[in-house]
Order: sequence, then structure tokens, then C-alpha cells
Amino acid sequence: MSGNTFGTLFRITTWGESHGAAIGVVIDGCPAGIALGEADIQKELDRRRPGQSDITTPRKEEDKAEILSGVFSGKTTGAPISIMVRNRDVDSSKYEELRSTPRPGHADLTYELKYGFRDWRGGGRSSARETAGRVAAGAVAKKILAAHRIEILGHVVELGGIRAKSVNIGDIRENTEKNPVRCADPDAALKMYAMIQAERSEGDSAGGIVEIISLGVPAGVGEPVFDKLSAELARGLMSIGAVKGIEIGAGFSSAVMRGSQMNDPIILRDGKPGMLTNNAGGILGGISTGEPIVCRIAVKPTPSISKEQCTVDLSKMDEAKIKIRGRHDPSIPPRIVPVAEAMVALVLVDMMMRGGFIKTSAVG
Amino acid sequence: MSGNTFGTLFRITTWGESHGAAIGVVIDGCPAGIALGEADIQKELDRRRPGQSDITTPRKEEDKAEILSGVFSGKTTGAPISIMVRNRDVDSSKYEELRSTPRPGHADLTYELKYGFRDWRGGGRSSARETAGRVAAGAVAKKILAAHRIEILGHVVELGGIRAKSVNIGDIRENTEKNPVRCADPDAALKMYAMIQAERSEGDSAGGIVEIISLGVPAGVGEPVFDKLSAELARGLMSIGAVKGIEIGAGFSSAVMRGSQMNDPIILRDGKPGMLTNNAGGILGGISTGEPIVCRIAVKPTPSISKEQCTVDLSKMDEAKIKIRGRHDPSIPPRIVPVAEAMVALVLVDMMMRGGFIKTSAVG
Amino acid sequence: MSGNTFGTLFRITTWGESHGAAIGVVIDGCPAGIALGEADIQKELDRRRPGQSDITTPRKEEDKAEILSGVFSGKTTGAPISIMVRNRDVDSSKYEELRSTPRPGHADLTYELKYGFRDWRGGGRSSARETAGRVAAGAVAKKILAAHRIEILGHVVELGGIRAKSVNIGDIRENTEKNPVRCADPDAALKMYAMIQAERSEGDSAGGIVEIISLGVPAGVGEPVFDKLSAELARGLMSIGAVKGIEIGAGFSSAVMRGSQMNDPIILRDGKPGMLTNNAGGILGGISTGEPIVCRIAVKPTPSISKEQCTVDLSKMDEAKIKIRGRHDPSIPPRIVPVAEAMVALVLVDMMMRGGFIKTSAVG
Amino acid sequence: MSGNTFGTLFRITTWGESHGAAIGVVIDGCPAGIALGEADIQKELDRRRPGQSDITTPRKEEDKAEILSGVFSGKTTGAPISIMVRNRDVDSSKYEELRSTPRPGHADLTYELKYGFRDWRGGGRSSARETAGRVAAGAVAKKILAAHRIEILGHVVELGGIRAKSVNIGDIRENTEKNPVRCADPDAALKMYAMIQAERSEGDSAGGIVEIISLGVPAGVGEPVFDKLSAELARGLMSIGAVKGIEIGAGFSSAVMRGSQMNDPIILRDGKPGMLTNNAGGILGGISTGEPIVCRIAVKPTPSISKEQCTVDLSKMDEAKIKIRGRHDPSIPPRIVPVAEAMVALVLVDMMMRGGFIKTSAVG
Repeated sequence: MSGNTFGTLFRITTWGESHGAAIGVVIDGCPAGIALGEADIQKELDRRRPGQSDITTPRKEEDKAEILSGVFSGKTTGAPISIMVRNRDVDSSKYEELRSTPRPGHADLTYELKYGFRDWRGGGRSSARETAGRVAAGAVAKKILAAHRIEILGHVVELGGIRAKSVNIGDIRENTEKNPVRCADPDAALKMYAMIQAERSEGDSAGGIVEIISLGVPAGVGEPVFDKLSAELARGLMSIGAVKGIEIGAGFSSAVMRGSQMNDPIILRDGKPGMLTNNAGGILGGISTGEPIVCRIAVKPTPSISKEQCTVDLSKMDEAKIKIRGRHDPSIPPRIVPVAEAMVALVLVDMMMRGGFIKTSAVG
Repeated sequence: MSGNTFGTLFRITTWGESHGAAIGVVIDGCPAGIALGEADIQKELDRRRPGQSDITTPRKEEDKAEILSGVFSGKTTGAPISIMVRNRDVDSSKYEELRSTPRPGHADLTYELKYGFRDWRGGGRSSARETAGRVAAGAVAKKILAAHRIEILGHVVELGGIRAKSVNIGDIRENTEKNPVRCADPDAALKMYAMIQAERSEGDSAGGIVEIISLGVPAGVGEPVFDKLSAELARGLMSIGAVKGIEIGAGFSSAVMRGSQMNDPIILRDGKPGMLTNNAGGILGGISTGEPIVCRIAVKPTPSISKEQCTVDLSKMDEAKIKIRGRHDPSIPPRIVPVAEAMVALVLVDMMMRGGFIKTSAVG
Repeated sequence: MSGNTFGTLFRITTWGESHGAAIGVVIDGCPAGIALGEADIQKELDRRRPGQSDITTPRKEEDKAEILSGVFSGKTTGAPISIMVRNRDVDSSKYEELRSTPRPGHADLTYELKYGFRDWRGGGRSSARETAGRVAAGAVAKKILAAHRIEILGHVVELGGIRAKSVNIGDIRENTEKNPVRCADPDAALKMYAMIQAERSEGDSAGGIVEIISLGVPAGVGEPVFDKLSAELARGLMSIGAVKGIEIGAGFSSAVMRGSQMNDPIILRDGKPGMLTNNAGGILGGISTGEPIVCRIAVKPTPSISKEQCTVDLSKMDEAKIKIRGRHDPSIPPRIVPVAEAMVALVLVDMMMRGGFIKTSAVG
Repeated sequence: MSGNTFGTLFRITTWGESHGAAIGVVIDGCPAGIALGEADIQKELDRRRPGQSDITTPRKEEDKAEILSGVFSGKTTGAPISIMVRNRDVDSSKYEELRSTPRPGHADLTYELKYGFRDWRGGGRSSARETAGRVAAGAVAKKILAAHRIEILGHVVELGGIRAKSVNIGDIRENTEKNPVRCADPDAALKMYAMIQAERSEGDSAGGIVEIISLGVPAGVGEPVFDKLSAELARGLMSIGAVKGIEIGAGFSSAVMRGSQMNDPIILRDGKPGMLTNNAGGILGGISTGEPIVCRIAVKPTPSISKEQCTVDLSKMDEAKIKIRGRHDPSIPPRIVPVAEAMVALVLVDMMMRGGFIKTSAVG
């Protein structure tokens, strides 16, 4: 694989399978002297944890983070930070029958073809459980960003065709974590919640759109021409399972705009150049403008559905039908919010280090 | 910057500014023994070249490719291939007046903030002229892919709000290069062409959507969990200037689909597992499925418009108005087609090398 | 730090401190389908383990390897392999008194200067204990190489000024692991053993030279001009603590040779081109020749000695004297043998993957 | 190949063959605002240039540097700097007869085996001419270092068995560039000069040792555990053709020292911790100590000799004899001095950027 490391100067490596002994992450490049404890990690892991509400998978995992290295006397030392989460509530029984019949919309078939041998228990490495490592590392990244007064806010803006009304930063801060759907519009949240329940009862699932806003990112972050901030964000967000699209600022809407509508007028704000609007989503020429950085991702409906589906039995090379019985989320967007925030945080810390905004050592 | 290199095993480094002496690219990691001449490069550069039709910038550049290394007796040697294109029709006069007034929607302001000093002539390094290096390298990548019977087809599917009707591969092959808009639907092409002329006459510009389809990519390409094929494509395509969104397969539409609609049924085709539909866009779990790989990018309207715009005069830190007079394309999608194809080709060769599909040397 | 990852396609990330909870490694890029168990790892860890003889540190560590991911039903899956070793016999009491007085020849001072805050217990991250992760990963690399009939043999050729007589491959295979010094010349081994005991009783320590020979490496491995096989080996070996020099083939002796002596005549062997001699050490132009690859490293004497030494008390910025009481090896070369073998194995697997000699997936 | 790029944040990519159209380098990651002109590059290229004295190859190359990008109004812009040197005095006639008979000690055979097809003219990509790109990039790196008051001094300390007497920094600055051997001991220089002439008249060649001292490097540079400053220097220096060994500080001598001799006492100097001696060569635990960084490289004798040598005719797979008639240096050490300095400078700038000592942009 060799694709399990992310970042250049702030670099994470994740490992672990859904039904293996544990999952984890090694964070390399964290500056020394940052106060860090397991509670910092746990806070974010709890937002991603299965079983946190009745619209997530019933798998019961405490997801308890253990910091194994890189922290001494409550502070980071600059050495790699290894974080491990033991898998506890593993039940592979439902997967046994799916060993040779790849689930549509899942990575079962492609892993089988690529590796010729695969851990079929709970999706193995391709399970969404893999994202626990990302979220743990993202918690560290968020801590670093917070010291630079940068805040990352994720929320569900659309689910199963239901759109949240336009919200402001205050709404997002106030409302998002108060409902299990993570939608900043309480009315839409109720409808989305009902929609998820309906889909589940029909043995089906729903997709949606998640928005991630980064506040406080200084102008000048991003390394053209290939390592543009936009390109790094696109890569990081698209690397999350179930994400099928990513847009920045006006995104796909920009395709139907005129230049005179799309261009954000440059104005003076507090004596410094700023933008009157933010169609650019905070990035021009691959470099941050100082305005909020706005990303949206398209999340496909959970591929695990209990309706009957067509597949192929690889052991006999014959067509077959399956119904999926394992535990799974009926809709991914609410639980993908902390994962997407983590990826944005990881990209920002790495790119800010590359640009010299975050010091990598005590000297220099 | 340090962001001017792309790829891991098949790696390109581009250089050059819009109004500098030349632009170019170094391709590292090309296998030895491939027949390659300047004509192979020129063919693709001519598709990107300014002045190729009356809806592109009137700048007259032959864009003549010179291969300086890595080719001996008409074949690649495995050594880095250096390709240079001299800039000929340089006219910086129109930019002199814009030195201290950054153009809205352009990278003028962010480059100024990041580097503190910038080549203001024609956008300098942030100019779309930079993509000539990508296209030259993409021509080499396409040659390698062609030997593996992989074909990459780009076409404009929407422009200025006009949507092409649904087309098949035959239409794309047949029609795209026959009209200056690069749209596979001839009727829509005419309307798009008229739209571009209208926008230009009003001093405005239009955006659009480009689709890139890769045919013949074998199953198994992509390196989870971070270096997914989808993530690498997203990064490569989002690194092109003016791109504000990228989607794969059903993309943003997947947000409103049910799992039972989105999941592509797995079937037997010629005795091997295939997909009945292709909502996944040829990628599951970050690994190619063997089906066509379908990407779409949102392209913003050209930021250079002749309408009056608000900006700030950085020399006086005062608000100002500008009208842009330089030469530019009224709509980017037609010319971005070969650039997007090049980025997809570069990603595919690199990821196929990483997966062992393309040999990197004569031995091994 | 961000310097804790090694390799491009076969990539390891190590973590852990001498007196922390555990140490470990994540191996990314291991092909799927390789039989692997904890015993494979343990075998090599036991060669590196402290307390294995009376000339190593008396610290008692079982160094029991736990594989946490990447292996299913006794075979690798292509997913990252996480290996952890818990620290058991931790005694930080002797280090408390050295908190503010950096030990000469150690990394105490440079870590303090670079990070401004450091884990002073047992050397923290800069301890030789860090190499357990390298050795665990090296065990996996050796398993891959063995399948390609490549063997790596390390042995001590000089210690405390005592030189082993010239030995052949048979001697190395036969004798090296039979004595605690890991010297293939039994007579010299006895003298070296006595020398180590003498140095220890005087509160001093001895350095030496270790040779690592790789047999069976095919011609064609190495990626000029910067990623030459010689350069990658030099980097990997010089990254081991206590190594102050590295040479390949005739090495520093080549400086006093004539071209007519140094050049290895090219001959026919079994119908294929080979070398009559091997002054090149198996590498020409940065690419393997097919002859044995011969590296030698200079290992400095253990800096931890019980003789009184001059240092500075950083808490008072005053000159001070220290005597080191912690547990340590009186001579490093015997225990560095498996570490150096591991680094050579890691470089070879990575470079053979880059050259296409080792398949990275089942397809391709 | 994909091995033609060096560095992480300050990254160079070299290209070109001995008898191709040109050779060159692209430098990515150079900060903006540095005064840079072709004269800065030329000064260093002239030190490496062939034909500079009667003990170098008689090939006549002006080696005129052309800066093609990244510099505007005499200052760097942060964009990649492309530098090209046209090949002028190309004479491939002498190489025609060596097409199928690889020269012992050269990379002819390994390139043939690896790539299956090679540019045989003048060694192609494996020629020492490739180092012109390194030296050009090194000139930029030296300019950056000079602004941080860091100086890099290379000199020949041994040649053909003749050792220079011990010299100090003043001697090196004063004497090295005054004799064609680049030896800081004038008496030894005369003997070395005579030795080279004698070897050449006998159709043979001589090796030697070059020392590179870096003055003014601050404490704290280097990224343990793998990207130690020592490891990066070893990689960079070993990547130069003809180098067969590298040592730092006491190097191979440390193998025969006791710990009590090797350990550099830590003292107070100007109120800050320093070292009384410098056996560590300025690096402990992979991090710079603030003392001079001292590297030495073993350079093998030029493999091109006019004495008859044994080889194999690959076209007939038969043993053969050759005498080499092309133009070449009778001894490499004098001309390798600027190349080795360049590699050290490149490593230092890159590692200082990674450690935050050198700013990568105007912001941050």
C-alpha cells in the first residue's frame, strides 16, 4: 500500500483494521512543549465514536485513547506521538457469510483484486473505523491551531435531499453539536433525523453534504503550483471513504456565474486588503487570502443496506444475491463531520509549517 | 515555494513565468526505451496553445517544444527529460499599470502577501501559461498509457449555464476536437460559442464544467488509505488554476441518492466481476474497479474582465478601481481540457507505477 | 521532528522512548500474502535485546513483539503492520541527577537546544532503544528478501583496535552468532571480549567497525543520480546512533589506490558479465552490479562511561563534573550488528520496489 | 529513474547528459527577495569547469549559466529557478568504439543492465558533467547560507597517498584556491601535482580524500531519528560519483578510540555550552552542536585510464580488451571540491528550512 502516511512536515501514519487488535496513529513533526493529554484526544474521538446516538451504528466502542510516546510530564517532546485505541466490541460473525460475495459500493472487490488476499472482517482496513486514527491526530492538530486562534467548524448542510437554511458562524457554533445529525439549522435537523429513521426502516440509506469552515487562517498559506492549499485540502478530504466530491467557495456554482459575479471585490478592512465577498472560499492561486476557508464535501449514502443486492460469488465466479446484516450507520454525514474537520486541521498545520507560520522547533 | 513537483515515481517539476525567458518541465522517472520526439509533445501543446481560435487569448505563441535531455536516438533513456518552450510574444505593457492594484479573482494579492515581492508581468508564475509544462509532461504520460491501451478523453459538459446533452464515448471521440469549445454535443457547442462571444462583448466571462474520462485503466490502481486514486486525482485536478470543485462518478449527485440507487450492482462480464452501472466513477475504496474513471471539474469564469472592478492600491493602501486590458481568454473550459487530461494522465502513470502496473526499468 | 519515517515505497515509521510506555514501528508498503508471525520478529529482536550476554547492558527486557495490524490468518494483507514492544524494566532513578548536566558524547545537549524540553529518562527518544523498531521492521524486510534469495550478513571486523583476520562468507555464517562479540574470527573474538571486559573495569569503552554484506542482490538496483543505492545505504546506516563513518567496497582505501588497481575487471561468468574483483563493493554509478554489496560502518565507543567527565550544569550555566551510573553497553558494535543489517534490508526492499524487482500488489 | 530530485523544502532537480544539448537544474523552494544573478552561479561553475588547469580534462566548456526563471529585477521571486548550461565542446567520436564494451569502474554496465538502452556518448547521464547542475544550485544555497554567516570550505587533504599536513581554517581560506590541486598545504600541493602528472604519463590515475568544513551552523539543525543531519550529509555526499566513503568528525578513527578520548568535554564558552574538542564533527544525535561540521569523503581514482583493461563485448558476449582514449581528469579530488561543497550547502539549507532557521516565505 504505502499510502498510509499523510503530510510533509506534520505527518501522520495510521494503521489498524475494523476487527483487528487495535487501531492507531503515529504523529510525526509535532512541536515540543505543547500541553497534551489523553483527554484532548478523547474529546474528538467521542464525537466520532460509534453508538453515540440512535442514528449511528450500534457497535459499542469506548474508543479509549492511549498515548504511548512523545509526551512527557504532560507536554509534547517533539518525538513521534503514538496513539492506540483497542478494538473491544468486535463481532465478525455477520461478515463470515460475505467472505466471497463482495458488497456493492464497498471496497471488498477492489481490495480482493488488488491484494489477492484480504481481511474480510468488518471491511478490514477499508472500514470507516480507520478514521479513528485521523481524528486522534486531528485533535493534536486542532490544539496547535487553537494556539494560533484558528477554529475549524464542520456541519451537515444537506442530508437525503433536505437542505439546511443558510446559517452564520454563530448558528454553527451554537446548534451543530446539539443534535445527532450535526446540522446547524434545528428545523432541518429534525427533518433529517426523521429521514434517516425512515431510510433505515426501509433498509436503505441516505447521503448528504458537509461543510467545513476554517476561521482565522492567515493570508499566505499554500505552496503553488501543485501543493496549492486547495489541492491539499481536496486530497485530504477526498481520501475519506464515502466522499465523492469536494468544492471550495462557490465551487460547482462558479460554473454558472459570470466573472463579474464570481470575482470578490478587494476592499480595505482595518487598514488591510480584504474581500467584500468570499466566492473564492478563502483561497486564490492556491494561497489563503485571510478570509474564512470554506470547503464542502459530497458524501454518498452508506453502501451497507439491508435490501437485497446483486453481486458475484468469487469462490464460484457466479452471480449471487446478498442482504447485509452487519452493524452500520444509516447515514454517514453526521459522523463524518469530525473526520472532515480532522483532515482540514491536518492539512492546515502541515501547510502552515511548510510556510513557516508554525515553528517546528525551539530554535530557528 | 517547494510546491512545483508532482508525483512520487513518475515525477514532474515545472518552472517558468508568463513573461520570463521560457517555461518548461523536467520529467523524472520515465522508463527507458519509449519512442519519443518533439512532435509527440507538440501535438498536445498545440491543443493548449493560445491563439488557436477566436475564443482564446490573442497572444501569439508557437509554443515550440525543445527536448533538451533524456532522449537519445529517438528513444527515452530513463534519464530526466527536460522540455523547454521559449516565450516569444511577450507584452508586459498592459500590466505595468496593475503593478500595485491586485486584480480581483487573481493570485496577485496572495502572491504579494506570501512572497513580499512578485513578478507582476502577466501574472508571473501564477499565470495559466504555467500549464504548458503540465501539458508537455502529460503528452509523455499519455504515450506511456497508450502502450497500456489507456485513453483519456476530456470534454466540456457545461459552459455559461448551457449544458451539453448526454453523450457517449463515440460522440466524445468524434465531436470534441471539431469545435473550438471542445464540447461533444455540436448543438450545445454552437450555443456555448455564442455565449462566449456575448460575454466577451460585454466585458465579462463565463465558467463551466469539464469531464475527463479514462478508459482502460485496470482494476487495482490506488494506494489506500490516503493515497487513494480518487484523492490523487482530486489533488492533481484541484491544483489547476480556476478549478473550484472536483467530483468523481455521481459526485455531488450522490448526496441526494439512496444507497440502493448509488450502489453499482456487481455482475459477471466476460467471466470477470464488473459493475452494471458506474455511479462510483470507476473507483471504490480509493482503488480502480476496472470501469471507466469519470472526473468532473468546476471551472470558474476567467477573472480577467474588462468591466470596472474594486480593488486596493497597495502602494497607497487606498481603495481603487481597475479595468483589465491585457490579453486573456473569455472562457477557460475549452483550453483547460488538455490541461485536465494531462493531470489525469500524470496521476495514472504515477499510481500505476506505484502499483507495479508500469515497469520502471528494464530489469525487475 | 518529522524525521521518523524511512523509505519511499517500503516505508517505516518508528516511535517510542527508552523509558516510555512502549516502543514500536509501523511498516507501510509490505506486499500482501507473506506469511508473518510474531516469531519472525522476535528472532531478530532477540539478537538486539539488552541483557543477552555479559558484555551488554544489564537492563532486562524481554522485548516481546506484538503485531497489532496488517496480518490476518498468518499472512500480511498489504495494510500497515503495527508492531509494539512494551518497556518493562524501566529504572529512571540514575538519570534524575543528570537532568541538567548533559552527558558528553550523547544527544542530551543537542535535544535540549533543539526542543527546549526533553524526556531526560534514559536518553528519551535518542536512546539506542529506539532501534528496536528498526530491527522489527528489518525482520519483515529480511523475510521479503529471503523469498528473493537475498541474504544479509553482519559481523564485527574490528573492536578496540583488534582486527579480525580476513574471513570468507562461510566463516561469517558459521562463526558470527557463536560468540557474544559477533566476530567471525574466533581468535579475534576472544581478544575483543577480553578487551571489552578490560575497558569496562576501567570505566571506559571501545569502538569498532562492523561490516554488512548483502548476497544475491540482482544487478540494476538503485536510482541515480541522487537516490543511488550507495547514497541510500549511507543515509540509512549513518542514521544509526554512534555511527561516524560509512564506506562501500574499497572505501577509504580507494583513496590510496591507482585506477588500474581499483577498477574491477569485467569478465564473463556463467555467460553473463561479472567482476573479477569487488573493489566497487557491488555498486557502480549508484546501481548494483550483481556482486555482493559490501558496507562497513565506523562505530564510536559508547559515550556512557563511568570515568569523571566535564560538562555544564544548564540550570546554573556553570561548569560541572559527572560520572555516569546508568546501565549501558561497554561496546556497541556487537549489538549494532542486527541494527545495521536491518537498515540494509530496509534500503534494499525499498529500492528493489522502486526498481520493480519486488511487486507491491497482486496485480500489476 | 525518479532519483534526480534532492531535498524536501529546498529541492533541486538536475537533468542533462554529457553529450546532450544542455545540462541544468531546477531549484524549488528558494525564498523570495534574494539578490541573484548569473555571476553568482558562474563563480562556482568556473571552479568546477573542465579545462581550468593542466591537470583537468582538456574538454573546453565555458559552462555559461543561463537563468531562465524565478528571478525578476535581479531578485528571486519564490518561483522555481531554472538554470541551463549549453554543452558546446562535444566530441563523441572516442566513445563510438566503446559502445558495446563497458568501461571498468564506470557505470556503463550497470546502466546497460538497468535500462536496457543507454546514451553511451561520454557516459551519458552518469558522466561527472551531471554535477554542473549541483554546483549551480549549490551557488544559490551558498548565497542563502552566507546571509546567515555560514561558510563552507572544501579542500583536498590526501591525494595519491600524499597527505597534507594539519591545517587551520586560515590556511584553508588562504591557500586552497591558489593551487590547481585545491590543497591548503602548499608543499603537499606541489607533491600532489607532480603525482598527478606522473600518473597521467603512465596512463593511470590517483584517488584522494576531500574534507568539507561548515562554519557558523547554529545548534539544533537535523531531524532525528532518520533524517539526522549526519545521515542527510552522508546521503548527499555519497550521491556524488566516485565517492566510496564518508566520515564525520573523528570518523573511522573513532573505532580505535576509547570513550574517554572520543567524548568531547562540554564547556562554557561566551556563557553558552560548547565543546572543548570536536571529535563529534559538530553533530551529536543527528543534530548540530554549534561547532564546525566536519565531513571527509573518500574519492576513488578516475576509472578512465589509458592502460589496457579487461571487459566484455556485450554485442558478442565475449571477453575483450579496451584502452580508453576519451578526455578525462587524471585525478578527481581537485574538481570534486566545489561539488562536495555544493552538496553540503544544499543539505544545510534544506535542513535549516525544515528546522525553521531559514524562512520559506515573507509571512509566517
